[in-house]
Amino acid sequence: MKPVMTIEQLHDLMMREFPQMAENFDVTEVRDDGATVRMFIDNSHLRPGGTVSGPTMFALADCAFYMATLAMIGPEALTVTTSCSIDFMRKPRPGDLVGDARILKLGKALVVGDVMIHSIHDHNPVARASVTYSIPPKRTEIGVS
Amino acid sequence: MKPVMTIEQLHDLMMREFPQMAENFDVTEVRDDGATVRMFIDNSHLRPGGTVSGPTMFALADCAFYMATLAMIGPEALTVTTSCSIDFMRKPRPGDLVGDARILKLGKALVVGDVMIHSIHDHNPVARASVTYSIPPKRTEIGVS
Amino acid sequence: MKPVMTIEQLHDLMMREFPQMAENFDVTEVRDDGATVRMFIDNSHLRPGGTVSGPTMFALADCAFYMATLAMIGPEALTVTTSCSIDFMRKPRPGDLVGDARILKLGKALVVGDVMIHSIHDHNPVARASVTYSIPPKRTEIGVS
Amino acid sequence: MKPVMTIEQLHDLMMREFPQMAENFDVTEVRDDGATVRMFIDNSHLRPGGTVSGPTMFALADCAFYMATLAMIGPEALTVTTSCSIDFMRKPRPGDLVGDARILKLGKALVVGDVMIHSIHDHNPVARASVTYSIPPKRTEIGVS
Repeated sequence: MKPVMTIEQLHDLMMREFPQMAENFDVTEVRDDGATVRMFIDNSHLRPGGTVSGPTMFALADCAFYMATLAMIGPEALTVTTSCSIDFMRKPRPGDLVGDARILKLGKALVVGDVMIHSIHDHNPVARASVTYSIPPKRTEIGVS
Repeated sequence: MKPVMTIEQLHDLMMREFPQMAENFDVTEVRDDGATVRMFIDNSHLRPGGTVSGPTMFALADCAFYMATLAMIGPEALTVTTSCSIDFMRKPRPGDLVGDARILKLGKALVVGDVMIHSIHDHNPVARASVTYSIPPKRTEIGVS
Repeated sequence: MKPVMTIEQLHDLMMREFPQMAENFDVTEVRDDGATVRMFIDNSHLRPGGTVSGPTMFALADCAFYMATLAMIGPEALTVTTSCSIDFMRKPRPGDLVGDARILKLGKALVVGDVMIHSIHDHNPVARASVTYSIPPKRTEIGVS
Repeated sequence: MKPVMTIEQLHDLMMREFPQMAENFDVTEVRDDGATVRMFIDNSHLRPGGTVSGPTMFALADCAFYMATLAMIGPEALTVTTSCSIDFMRKPRPGDLVGDARILKLGKALVVGDVMIHSIHDHNPVARASVTYSIPPKRTEIGVS
């Protein structure tokens, strides 16, 4: 398993295909077994009391795993999120979140892995997601995750 | 298990405590074992190709289960999403989504159940989420989900 | 979605292919959207204190969903459990367990559904599992779940 | 987070409280954030075709996480498996399995972590489980997982 896309290519793809997402996310690293994505947190992502909302953390998990998957299989693939199981462990204080996506299996039909999420204010993980993507047989266009 | 809050009380609580959420969600039914929430889908919830995004469906699952939980335990509780495992089964076409939350266990510390999500355009479910909420021992203020 | 196998055919298949399993499980119903399997609980399935062990409940969830899947796609299929997410809600007292498997999506590559498990001594569910099976493209022999 | 029990103490506890389990499992390492358990695989754990069954892998995940939890909180605790979400990634050939349990959150009420399972014949993981245990408020006797 080796990445076939660079940070710059992933960034350009996100800008082109998911302009709404591109405002909130930044791919900061691509590794042999995954990628890291930073999410910019603003007031719209907070719940009363000042903690980052669950759906926001889910969005980061989904984006980070999607970027890690594309990094490995390339931009032409039509991939879809099949399942995501997320454990919320600590309430993140306001501040950007970082998601480290790790691919454990890169199959022909399914990609399986997980995403560890932590806050820039805390070394301990705030959430961890197990994610499965499916890659339809016919790869014709950019994926919709 | 019997609801202790009405649709109107849940609606008022959402308006007061989660004004951002209240724009997108509408509690349409409260039952003995759960509640139904409708999510208004607009362009900001869509992915290229016109399907509703995964994080949007997660947000509906979380909101529907939160409303069902509050309906049963009342507004004073500080509850937090502990885990959510979601299966995406069909791509929903643009259009509002409906989430039917069902509570399977209402314990002192944990609330367990699931949410079936379907599109107003399709009878078949588009996603199904298994959700666990925890209720901290000290119930002092409105929850942050 | 309609079953293509009867209770008797499923029973014979289990006897022939999984003789070890057949001692513990009995298919009691096949429905349009699923099947019900009863598990005979003996002392080997109990933990100290007299409750049925978690792996035992997992085995029932896996078997019930496998039988429901075969009921729909027929005996020739090579299917494998891809993922299972199980919530343990109540400790079952000693006694047989019943698993109601429901298929929510019968796709070409993935079968998604859930299994509600209850004890013959208790109306309330003791566990609920969300299960995904994958059906490899080439269907040549009986599945290994 | 530091272990408060040694390998020997965990082994003795398993022999005393779970003699059935003790025949199949061996705690091989205790670390600051978890523990490793080896499972002895014999013919009773195999499916036709010679692969290790899903319930067998679940049993290893459950045991490894239980041992890791007791290692951190001590033998007096009554802990129960609350949920387990397992992804099966590769079919293990016959041979012992090793489960590396890692604790990500050791809370007062909930313990959250995961277990990576691999075969002694394969460096790649065959399954990965996300596990949550709950620790009831009153800790009076040995746990039943």
